[in-house]
Amino acid sequence: MDKIIVANILDVELNDIYPCEIHISDGYIEELIPIATTDPSDVDLDFEGILLPGFIDSHTHIESSLITPSNYAKAVIPYGTTSVIADVHEIANVLGIKGINFMIENGREVPFDFFYSAPSCVPATSFENSGAILDSEIVKLILNLNEVVSLGELMNVAGVLTGDEEILHKIESAKKLNKPVDGHAPLLSGEGLKQYIDAGITTDHESSSFDEAIEKKKLGMKIMVREGSSAKNFDDLLNKNDRQIFWANEEDAKNLSRDDYNVLVKNPIFDFLVTDDLNPIDLLKGHLDLLIKKLIETDVFPIEAIKMVTFNPSKHYNLDAGIIAVGKKANFVLIDNFDQFNILKTFVGGEIVYEDGKLMFDAKEVQTQNTFNLSKKIPEDFNIITNFKEGKVKACVIKVRDGSLITDKTIKQLDVKDYTIQEDVSKDILKIAVVNRYGGDTVANGFVKGFKIKDGAIASSVAHDSHNIIVIGTNNYDMAKAVNHITESHGGLVVCSRKKEINELLELPIGGLMCNDDVSTVAFKLKNLHNIIKLLGCEFESPFMTLSFLSLLVIPSLKLSDEGLFDSEEFKFIDIVEEIIEILDNKD
Amino acid sequence: MDKIIVANILDVELNDIYPCEIHISDGYIEELIPIATTDPSDVDLDFEGILLPGFIDSHTHIESSLITPSNYAKAVIPYGTTSVIADVHEIANVLGIKGINFMIENGREVPFDFFYSAPSCVPATSFENSGAILDSEIVKLILNLNEVVSLGELMNVAGVLTGDEEILHKIESAKKLNKPVDGHAPLLSGEGLKQYIDAGITTDHESSSFDEAIEKKKLGMKIMVREGSSAKNFDDLLNKNDRQIFWANEEDAKNLSRDDYNVLVKNPIFDFLVTDDLNPIDLLKGHLDLLIKKLIETDVFPIEAIKMVTFNPSKHYNLDAGIIAVGKKANFVLIDNFDQFNILKTFVGGEIVYEDGKLMFDAKEVQTQNTFNLSKKIPEDFNIITNFKEGKVKACVIKVRDGSLITDKTIKQLDVKDYTIQEDVSKDILKIAVVNRYGGDTVANGFVKGFKIKDGAIASSVAHDSHNIIVIGTNNYDMAKAVNHITESHGGLVVCSRKKEINELLELPIGGLMCNDDVSTVAFKLKNLHNIIKLLGCEFESPFMTLSFLSLLVIPSLKLSDEGLFDSEEFKFIDIVEEIIEILDNKD
Repeated sequence: MDKIIVANILDVELNDIYPCEIHISDGYIEELIPIATTDPSDVDLDFEGILLPGFIDSHTHIESSLITPSNYAKAVIPYGTTSVIADVHEIANVLGIKGINFMIENGREVPFDFFYSAPSCVPATSFENSGAILDSEIVKLILNLNEVVSLGELMNVAGVLTGDEEILHKIESAKKLNKPVDGHAPLLSGEGLKQYIDAGITTDHESSSFDEAIEKKKLGMKIMVREGSSAKNFDDLLNKNDRQIFWANEEDAKNLSRDDYNVLVKNPIFDFLVTDDLNPIDLLKGHLDLLIKKLIETDVFPIEAIKMVTFNPSKHYNLDAGIIAVGKKANFVLIDNFDQFNILKTFVGGEIVYEDGKLMFDAKEVQTQNTFNLSKKIPEDFNIITNFKEGKVKACVIKVRDGSLITDKTIKQLDVKDYTIQEDVSKDILKIAVVNRYGGDTVANGFVKGFKIKDGAIASSVAHDSHNIIVIGTNNYDMAKAVNHITESHGGLVVCSRKKEINELLELPIGGLMCNDDVSTVAFKLKNLHNIIKLLGCEFESPFMTLSFLSLLVIPSLKLSDEGLFDSEEFKFIDIVEEIIEILDNKD
Repeated sequence: MDKIIVANILDVELNDIYPCEIHISDGYIEELIPIATTDPSDVDLDFEGILLPGFIDSHTHIESSLITPSNYAKAVIPYGTTSVIADVHEIANVLGIKGINFMIENGREVPFDFFYSAPSCVPATSFENSGAILDSEIVKLILNLNEVVSLGELMNVAGVLTGDEEILHKIESAKKLNKPVDGHAPLLSGEGLKQYIDAGITTDHESSSFDEAIEKKKLGMKIMVREGSSAKNFDDLLNKNDRQIFWANEEDAKNLSRDDYNVLVKNPIFDFLVTDDLNPIDLLKGHLDLLIKKLIETDVFPIEAIKMVTFNPSKHYNLDAGIIAVGKKANFVLIDNFDQFNILKTFVGGEIVYEDGKLMFDAKEVQTQNTFNLSKKIPEDFNIITNFKEGKVKACVIKVRDGSLITDKTIKQLDVKDYTIQEDVSKDILKIAVVNRYGGDTVANGFVKGFKIKDGAIASSVAHDSHNIIVIGTNNYDMAKAVNHITESHGGLVVCSRKKEINELLELPIGGLMCNDDVSTVAFKLKNLHNIIKLLGCEFESPFMTLSFLSLLVIPSLKLSDEGLFDSEEFKFIDIVEEIIEILDNKD
């Protein structure tokens, strides 16, 4: 035995708080001796406050925070998070096994328990080109790693429903190892949903309404309530009114006593609190602690809220963390009380890794190979060409929603001049392009509405999930410049405007997704970019994150891959031009 | 706690035998309570005899026994072996990750502790074509698996010595995980050997003489004494006379008392007993138990002999087996006594899996994909062509040694007729060919001496390490027929003779390396083939195993890859024709 800690522990199995002697050996809890007392003030505690199990984010992509795993640990430990289940499919899409090895190795450099999901969909679909393909045999091998606790989100819903052999093989491998399979089924419902769940998929984090989540929950799924930077579902899934209506309907309110009913509505109904994707600016504000506090404010029992990031993931993923119990990792968060919910100390493996605002460890600088295999772009690469010189067309335009991964398809009239369809900046119809960076060297063009920038271009080497280069702009010149700037820098986020003499870059040299800075440095740089983008007219809270999801084909409705405009509902490529309205001139 | 066993245990740490209560929980030893007694006959033992730790073969290729891992477990458990460290590079060369997954999954079906080495050299060299390439990132991922305890034999000695980046990266990955790196350095000595060891390589199992082994040992290597079917080093490394001379020189015999000297010579000097490659016929006769008995017969202390397959591998590879100690797996062998050394019972995870000649489990039949991607061969494919019609040449011929992986290069005079160099069956100079089976569809031809068959052809889809099809024969017709028979059967061992109407096959449908039969069935079938081969004139004990190593380029001196004749000392391809002696006719 290495040490003994005496504290008031939260026992998430008994829903109780009591003073306890915790014996710790090799980072694990060896013995728990509850201290019998009639007067708690008698007990000589090592720390005042309540000792909770360290928090676990059950579904997140570290890469979205633009920092390395070890810097991620530094960022979240002050907020009481001691574990994440990271689906590393972003870096896997870029660098394959090399990327996964990098994440695991870098994570091991710090006192933090990284668990992983084996990426199930690399690439996410067969309608795009990524830097790597993880077939079912590689996924099986990855699933065999100790740190890998699940098969990651099965975004290829169509593949599951049509019984794609590779996907079924991956699911089977996970089942054989008793590791759960995570889902990703936005707006899926009815028979399709049943079939998806029957395939063995156990969780979903894509519900954007209470009704959607309840349908999934009733069919046996565990529901992850996601509150990320780009997708925010907390308010839609966890508000008190919905819970009241739900419990009143469910249990037949007439037969419930008022007291019983009051207890029921303090139950959050859903299972996990997760972040999925957090940009560094949001990550700097807090982590799961913010969500717990917010949930307690909706009148949920504090212990039930805490279970969503401790007991529930521990049980579902069979983790050796998340519960203060014998045999589990000695990962704790010391808070003052449930009302204030201040994080006083964080422990990993029995050691204090954070206290009094100070971290006890540092991250290590890393290097890793990158993949920017493409030629220099010229403005003409971003022309959308027609076979007539002048006229008007009805074009399919991607309509972006702020704070959502879901887009809409809208049809807009656009002019054709000199054989190219023209953007219409006055109506906020801008150009968008996805540029292949893995040797294909192709450019797929389209139109996008919602960003409202009046001049310039925004580009990113973070473009889910294949992470080609994505760019939007008011003109071809700035678009080409932005893409070339990323290529030359081997990854990054860029804003360019020739007119306003803007050319600002946040470098992301690790896979084009991450950098070596700590979260506050990256947040500062990103904030700077956001401010510039705001000056150009865009009012989105996370314009780069919103941009990055416009190439994620597995989320409705209209997206752009490096191969072209993609209808994510019909799951097929479509033409930009829906209809030619008139041809004014067809000759030179 | 699940159960208690009371027995006389061999404590390999204290070199002592005493009665002990063994508490077992979940397959592991939870507690050991020695029973204090003045009269051992007082103790109420559960079993008479001595309880040893289960034996561990620290280096073997399961595939060489032509059976699946689960059938391998069935084969060795009656001989007291409860673990092997398997280098699965044979199947990995054929099927890559899919093959490794197959071995791991199949091994899990039976009560046996399979540990693995991550294959370091797939393919073994860059001078041959295999079915898969395992790069340093895949190897790193494999090294991260729990069951993988070392980086497998670094056969690419030249790569280590020239600082090949991929190889260094693999070594570095193993070191970072504190997993030892296994060596493979036949006849390497002096500066080269030092450099090889300095790279971080910790073991060698290729020493074929006492002096070779001692040089390696003195430089810090752990020496594996190998006694397989094709390579037998036991007698050369462990004979008593060598030990006597060694200890006399070493410690300055004059200063040693007779008693001290007598103790020293009972020390085996070397570290492990391993099998490396066992054909099913040999495997049927016994396993590590045979080697222990043989070693005890050379006057080594029985406990020291047993340590070579228990304590030593346990320590070197950091295994949770191999010692009867708290926290270790409850794997035991019950023997009657050191003189008889009869295996009475075998335990795995605290359960009896073998007793009174009976196994308590069975293997599961499996299927796995294969790779035979080649066209039908015709006799002319095996012609060795010259640019003159008739004459005589001096040709480089592979000279085979029975019971050794090492070959010699010999120069023989051969006739040229009709633009082809002729075999000379009367002088035992036969044809040999390696036929690519991974889509390359090429045939590399050469000459071989030693097999002494008078008629027909012998072919095999087991051909180290790339496992293309290897064939020797007295004539092209039988060679083509043998190769085609293997292709049609998706793997196997074949003997053909048109003249004698022989066409016998042992099917190996799993990767062309293994079949679903149990060891006795395969041994019977192989014996049958051996008998036929004997009738054809070959007197080798394991003709197929000898044949299979003629394509292993990393062992001296002259070998044949699917790309041509290879000088394994100079590490380069060489021409079959060393010199043209005379040209008799150069026209049609």
